[in-house]
Amino acid sequence: MGNSNAPEVLLHALARISLPKGVELVGIGLPEYQSVSKIEYLPAASFIGMEEAPLAALRRKKDSSICIGLRHLKEGTLDAFVSAGNTGALVSGAKMIVGNLPGILRPALLTQMPTKKAPVAVLDVGANVSVQAVHLVQFAWLGAMSCRAQGIERPVVGLLNIGSEEMKGTSELQQAYQLLKELVNPPFHFAGNIEGKSVFEGEVDVLITDGFTGNIFLKTAEGIASLILDRFSSLLPPEEYKKLGPRIQDLKRHLHYAEYPGAYLIGLKKPVRKCHGYSTPEAFVNAVLGTVDTALNGITQAIEDQINKFKIFSSKRKRTPLA
Amino acid sequence: MGNSNAPEVLLHALARISLPKGVELVGIGLPEYQSVSKIEYLPAASFIGMEEAPLAALRRKKDSSICIGLRHLKEGTLDAFVSAGNTGALVSGAKMIVGNLPGILRPALLTQMPTKKAPVAVLDVGANVSVQAVHLVQFAWLGAMSCRAQGIERPVVGLLNIGSEEMKGTSELQQAYQLLKELVNPPFHFAGNIEGKSVFEGEVDVLITDGFTGNIFLKTAEGIASLILDRFSSLLPPEEYKKLGPRIQDLKRHLHYAEYPGAYLIGLKKPVRKCHGYSTPEAFVNAVLGTVDTALNGITQAIEDQINKFKIFSSKRKRTPLA
Repeated sequence: MGNSNAPEVLLHALARISLPKGVELVGIGLPEYQSVSKIEYLPAASFIGMEEAPLAALRRKKDSSICIGLRHLKEGTLDAFVSAGNTGALVSGAKMIVGNLPGILRPALLTQMPTKKAPVAVLDVGANVSVQAVHLVQFAWLGAMSCRAQGIERPVVGLLNIGSEEMKGTSELQQAYQLLKELVNPPFHFAGNIEGKSVFEGEVDVLITDGFTGNIFLKTAEGIASLILDRFSSLLPPEEYKKLGPRIQDLKRHLHYAEYPGAYLIGLKKPVRKCHGYSTPEAFVNAVLGTVDTALNGITQAIEDQINKFKIFSSKRKRTPLA
Repeated sequence: MGNSNAPEVLLHALARISLPKGVELVGIGLPEYQSVSKIEYLPAASFIGMEEAPLAALRRKKDSSICIGLRHLKEGTLDAFVSAGNTGALVSGAKMIVGNLPGILRPALLTQMPTKKAPVAVLDVGANVSVQAVHLVQFAWLGAMSCRAQGIERPVVGLLNIGSEEMKGTSELQQAYQLLKELVNPPFHFAGNIEGKSVFEGEVDVLITDGFTGNIFLKTAEGIASLILDRFSSLLPPEEYKKLGPRIQDLKRHLHYAEYPGAYLIGLKKPVRKCHGYSTPEAFVNAVLGTVDTALNGITQAIEDQINKFKIFSSKRKRTPLA
């Protein structure tokens, strides 16, 4: 529900996925779509629209598809949850119903972007419009722990900023820089401030930013990619461009937000993934497959283990008041 | 001074420019470069480095190249000023020495970006790291007046945001949205919030943002452009890519920040242009040519005339305290 595609289009796409053995999909939405669903279906009496104010909607609509899904996730009758609906409602609902990992103040949306070398994990790309320095520092730990859970022993972490010098950017960024610089032997390398243009050179494994800037970053990349591919198609002779077809499609998909397997809402006790409201059915399917991977590989548990191993967020630190 | 290229490299590049009749170039920098300069040269006893704190440096170094240039501009012995040095020092120095247009609270850096249709004027791309709603509204007027001064009768103005809905983004953006929506018959069309990906479709003539986000926007576009062109060169057979050479170079230049004719510091009484510290000599030359155009076409005066015509910023409004 809430996606710009009709629910039956997404349900049809989901029915065609070939899933690993033992994995079951459950659709959740308004009762009228139950009859077209070829997968298991939980009817929900309401849904939260894209234009609704998240907190008010969550209070009023406890029977919405998002709330029902998150409650099943909390109770363990579902193992992972994907939504293409209202981002604010999903993030706030997940915090309230599923709960954050111990010590985590704010979950963040993490997505992978291509670079000239390995992909970079960018967070936050939209869960927190404004943040304090302590949140940025937590995002750095979460991003690094996610890389470690996937085998990168000592990930390189950078802060997205408008220059490399320490005093650049907002006061939150300046403070986060100092806090990260002062960490003693963290299990990642803090590379300092990184400019937008250097990110795509592949200089860092993890790029830290607030949810507003991260979202602008993501969508700017998508927009400029579309512009360039458009210009290119007019530069090349049609038959030449056509020959490149499949490979250009591949590049396009790689750079197109709607085709990403969504963004992982990191910092929660259970796997939750968000895909954009204008996701194509293919992108939605990719998001579901990405979530299945996350769940099967136990990434959420691995991140929790890392947090416990490094005693990153002691309960004492958790209660420290935020300036 | 302050550019990542040696001053003599830039001086040599400037000596090769062919200028419109009656236009004279003057170099300003440390005395030791006077001997290599083939253009008129004003020696300056010091310069402000890229790492220096702007306000302290401006106070301490009244004999720096930036301060000397801006004083000549104020006194009318120069008609326009270009710098590739410390952005903060240039912006603060220009406000203090040259002065803002009547009623303008903060000048902004304006640059043109390519889109699928006409170029878009983006401001602020780096003069003000954090802003209030009233500043964003002034940027909208400045951007629109600059378009009008160049013949676009009723420019379309958008706010760079993470979604099109009114309540999206930071509280400053939400307030600016309301203030712009409530304007009665402004000489521009307010198109509301615009996402990064839509900007490149060419939906607006003017894109309004704070200097932090605008700078991230600009450098992300540059980074992703470089990534895609890199991938493309590996997709095409070498001989095919080579054939495209000049046209790809053209596209690259168009999308490469360092090749832009710099950013115009709009909202000042005299024309001041900033080009990036890592500008190539060619980009620096383009910045100088762009500045010559701005000065010859009287853009600054035309903007002041527009501001007076629409009585945009009455002196009364100017003294209103900022929450």
